[in-house]
Amino acid sequence: MPHALVLHRRVQFYETDAAGIVHFSNFFRYMEEAEHALWRENGISIFPAAPTHGWPRVAASFDYKRPLRFEDAFELHLSVTKISTRSLTYGCRIVCRGDVVADGSMTIVCVQRDGDHVMRAVPIPGSIVALFQPPAAPSPADS
Amino acid sequence: MPHALVLHRRVQFYETDAAGIVHFSNFFRYMEEAEHALWRENGISIFPAAPTHGWPRVAASFDYKRPLRFEDAFELHLSVTKISTRSLTYGCRIVCRGDVVADGSMTIVCVQRDGDHVMRAVPIPGSIVALFQPPAAPSPADS
Amino acid sequence: MPHALVLHRRVQFYETDAAGIVHFSNFFRYMEEAEHALWRENGISIFPAAPTHGWPRVAASFDYKRPLRFEDAFELHLSVTKISTRSLTYGCRIVCRGDVVADGSMTIVCVQRDGDHVMRAVPIPGSIVALFQPPAAPSPADS
Amino acid sequence: MPHALVLHRRVQFYETDAAGIVHFSNFFRYMEEAEHALWRENGISIFPAAPTHGWPRVAASFDYKRPLRFEDAFELHLSVTKISTRSLTYGCRIVCRGDVVADGSMTIVCVQRDGDHVMRAVPIPGSIVALFQPPAAPSPADS
Repeated sequence: MPHALVLHRRVQFYETDAAGIVHFSNFFRYMEEAEHALWRENGISIFPAAPTHGWPRVAASFDYKRPLRFEDAFELHLSVTKISTRSLTYGCRIVCRGDVVADGSMTIVCVQRDGDHVMRAVPIPGSIVALFQPPAAPSPADS
Repeated sequence: MPHALVLHRRVQFYETDAAGIVHFSNFFRYMEEAEHALWRENGISIFPAAPTHGWPRVAASFDYKRPLRFEDAFELHLSVTKISTRSLTYGCRIVCRGDVVADGSMTIVCVQRDGDHVMRAVPIPGSIVALFQPPAAPSPADS
Repeated sequence: MPHALVLHRRVQFYETDAAGIVHFSNFFRYMEEAEHALWRENGISIFPAAPTHGWPRVAASFDYKRPLRFEDAFELHLSVTKISTRSLTYGCRIVCRGDVVADGSMTIVCVQRDGDHVMRAVPIPGSIVALFQPPAAPSPADS
Repeated sequence: MPHALVLHRRVQFYETDAAGIVHFSNFFRYMEEAEHALWRENGISIFPAAPTHGWPRVAASFDYKRPLRFEDAFELHLSVTKISTRSLTYGCRIVCRGDVVADGSMTIVCVQRDGDHVMRAVPIPGSIVALFQPPAAPSPADS
């Protein structure tokens, strides 16, 4: 039941732009790619064939420190940083050759369609909360 | 009931790659963008809210003559070149500053889901055939 | 010398995802598309053929309120909200049929390559600052 | 010195569209992704830091047989099918769960910039031809 994951990835050519670096919008795709890999690690899909819940993004951000270039091999460190009743927040750090490239964050909300086909935020199912619960800080008794 | 359309478009930065030109995959997006504009010109959507038919692509190709660069303003000339019972073929030419940039082609097929949710090719509805029918070559009597 | 711009845009099919809505990463592309249109409105290109400066993004974020769907016609209201010595910040709001869809922000920094081909932040040229300067709040004397 | 490669890949969410399947334009990105992996297998990059040659695409096509969906794990079989003096052609087949999904083809040409910065087709360097040369059909004496 991991609440965190490291994605190893290489920059593809179609992710670069005329400035010779990865287009900034693709960092959000990398973050989501790691998110979905984390869900698979937990044995579930965020978008199964017959979904009971939806998980739209309500906030996403990145701070960029250094560029990524074609064929750079990088790591994306993703973790669940907060679980609320209806939403879940990830933090991520992208690292390349030991240097921090970017820090990102993303919040998703759990929704269901009601009778009128309108999406409405609902509590995250307990079984999913359990999967992504970050480990509690160790108490003195644990040491 | 036009069977052809000219799309005027400018290259966006996120469509370029590290070679400084539009990534070749984006030409297919331009062609489809023109296709959907053509359908709208005919008063219909290729993907309405409650679709009765689907229109998957079964073939797509481009021959590239010249590159497009950031902020280039170009025209895409799209036309229906063939309508068969179950499929429809478009041809397109991309032109920038009077020069031919690329020539493309795309074939879509009309499908419906049967009872098992499997997509099956079906005849194109007559009302849609009528919209996209290329004009017949003029007969001597028309002149 | 506008410091703000409204971009009118329609959602393209390749911008949607399997959830039936515009993929959240594309909002950043929309924001940049409006940015580059604003620069053109001011008679300059953010990435000319022989660039003297570069404008990498150092931060970007969006808060999402409602989804956009295929063929939705929307407006993106972009404005320069802050100019510092070396950086420039935009704010944007996306609106569709009168409803707020998303609010975003993006900060870019002015860089030049030094002798070692390393990018270094430099002051924004005064001519560019002048173009994007938000109008001062009217003083009593202006009224 | 392989002239062929199998890429193992999983469909990402941002590659799907509102029809619930991988957008047809992304198949061209998959084909190129495999191409660049093949070049790396041969110890070279198609776009190194200081490129001596460029490799623009002059033709690309796909025939689509079946859709790919979110999280599908697929294989892309890429091979060099023809080397001419100035161009190189790949063929590829995408397979998912044993079924053929699509067959594609792509031709690239070897270019250099001349004094006027115009790209001109030039012969492919012999060292590169050697790397990608498909194996000769076995002669009777080989058996």
